Amino acid sequence: MGNISEGSSPLETVTIDDVRRAHAAIHGLVHHTPLFTSATLSAMTGTRLTLKAESLQKTGSFKVRGTIFAAKSLSPEERKRGLIAITAGNHGAALAYGAGLAGTPATIVMPAGAVQAKIAAVRGYGGEVVLVDPSHLIESMEEIQRKQDSIYVNPIGSLWMIAGAGTAALEILDDIAEVPELVVVPVGGGGLIAGIATTIKALSPSTRVVGVEPETADVVHQSLAAGKPVRIDYPTSIADGLNTPFAAPLSFELIQRCVDEMVTVSDAEVVCAMRLILERMKLVVEPAGAAAVAALLAGKVPDAGGRRVVALLSGGNVDLRRLQQILA
Amino acid sequence: MGNISEGSSPLETVTIDDVRRAHAAIHGLVHHTPLFTSATLSAMTGTRLTLKAESLQKTGSFKVRGTIFAAKSLSPEERKRGLIAITAGNHGAALAYGAGLAGTPATIVMPAGAVQAKIAAVRGYGGEVVLVDPSHLIESMEEIQRKQDSIYVNPIGSLWMIAGAGTAALEILDDIAEVPELVVVPVGGGGLIAGIATTIKALSPSTRVVGVEPETADVVHQSLAAGKPVRIDYPTSIADGLNTPFAAPLSFELIQRCVDEMVTVSDAEVVCAMRLILERMKLVVEPAGAAAVAALLAGKVPDAGGRRVVALLSGGNVDLRRLQQILA
Repeated sequence: MGNISEGSSPLETVTIDDVRRAHAAIHGLVHHTPLFTSATLSAMTGTRLTLKAESLQKTGSFKVRGTIFAAKSLSPEERKRGLIAITAGNHGAALAYGAGLAGTPATIVMPAGAVQAKIAAVRGYGGEVVLVDPSHLIESMEEIQRKQDSIYVNPIGSLWMIAGAGTAALEILDDIAEVPELVVVPVGGGGLIAGIATTIKALSPSTRVVGVEPETADVVHQSLAAGKPVRIDYPTSIADGLNTPFAAPLSFELIQRCVDEMVTVSDAEVVCAMRLILERMKLVVEPAGAAAVAALLAGKVPDAGGRRVVALLSGGNVDLRRLQQILA
Repeated sequence: MGNISEGSSPLETVTIDDVRRAHAAIHGLVHHTPLFTSATLSAMTGTRLTLKAESLQKTGSFKVRGTIFAAKSLSPEERKRGLIAITAGNHGAALAYGAGLAGTPATIVMPAGAVQAKIAAVRGYGGEVVLVDPSHLIESMEEIQRKQDSIYVNPIGSLWMIAGAGTAALEILDDIAEVPELVVVPVGGGGLIAGIATTIKALSPSTRVVGVEPETADVVHQSLAAGKPVRIDYPTSIADGLNTPFAAPLSFELIQRCVDEMVTVSDAEVVCAMRLILERMKLVVEPAGAAAVAALLAGKVPDAGGRRVVALLSGGNVDLRRLQQILA
């Protein structure tokens, strides 16, 4: 999607200064989400575990940190043109929300057949939903984007989204009593971990950053193995929020540089973690949001034993019917 | 249970000074629980709604505020004797937890047939569970209490529990940007609201305090109508945490003096609120914990429209099977 007008060029990178800029831009517009500790989950993971609950963030995921930064970064001229993205997930609601705050229109291109609750969420925040043929998602989006001259917000590859995600790490370092030895992050396309790792390595270089992908949705793993961003076909994890089929140059480069390790988890491990977080922490997380805890519970994170660990709960958007199925 | 040795005599009352004493005693030992706002729930209730999430408190309910205060208040001699209570609910886990912190034993008398998860929770926190014939609960407890010379912690009628509950209101007033016009509280036996109302009326007399009982578990309503604490038979609300069959003199007197209004909700209204809190706020609350929000959603709280309202989410202990049934 190199031809699409968006907020960052391939030559750019993201630095701690961008994260600080994002932080200033979104201050007071997003929740400073709480940290939670749990003696039970610490014992079960053999770590000293703290959870950062981005599941309690506005619109139910960390994504608004980046979308509000994007919307607030527009010039008056750009604001008239509006924002656009393709997504069937949390990015849509977050973009509609951020655009609404900045008084700019948001167009969310979704595959026909997308979950009604996700469509309703976008519309509820004032976004325009365009349903298109799933086999021509990108072409359809590009056509609309050209017609509207709107600005594309790549969910995982734009400076805005990466720097926005990094602000969650600023909050962690501000709030936590002792600097964590390990930060564990769910990974879909890699935008979240790129921002978190950039921030952590700038401010606490000795803290290790570990990413967690589902076994069946491991585009970042495969990209690291290939040495460049790749696409995968039809990722199918129960963690639908991590079923991203592509990596992006900007976040990939940051991951190569700043992330210490990538591990994978099974769907069963994700469900087990999700149930535990619900039961013990009283927090609703979507399957994607439970991936980091899942890896810790399954002993998949190397040298975590006894460490001060922060795990991100990246989102909480799971509809009640789905939740009921998962609890069954 | 007037003969049982406990922390408060009928002549006592609870003042803001007791609440401050409790606050100092439990500081750092309980979570300073977060406040959450929701544009959606505000719109649905027609109020400016803030939620105080005691569901995220240690042991899953506000009860630890009082039980830790009780345990920390013991003299060295009393600490040897230990604490005792009857409960099939949150008070048991909280008492075991508080006692553990103070290094004093806790005996929790439960009806045979109590929910396994509740028994396991008490034991998990180091409490001793004694299962007795449900038809002789009080007599059995009194016998054990006499034998051990242990100190009874009345869940709703002791100064410790009432003052401890009041500390949640101190946190609300400390954290909130503008003083609330209305505070809405779930009511079982009345210990929580007695502490909240005492604190609110001392520090913000113009704030109204409204209590919410289930239609089928309305012992405080009936006590107010009778002008004295009464007992009711077999309260059967789905909000099991509010199924208290008795009121207590100390909390009753505070409720008469400091609570502005009592309203009731149906089980269906409780379930509806619980689902909304789960879906929109990403918070797991037990049915009892949703009662205040249920009353607001059902328009049962007089003159709430447009007001700055704080609703307490009193607890989050619902096991997954039960949760699944409620979502079905």
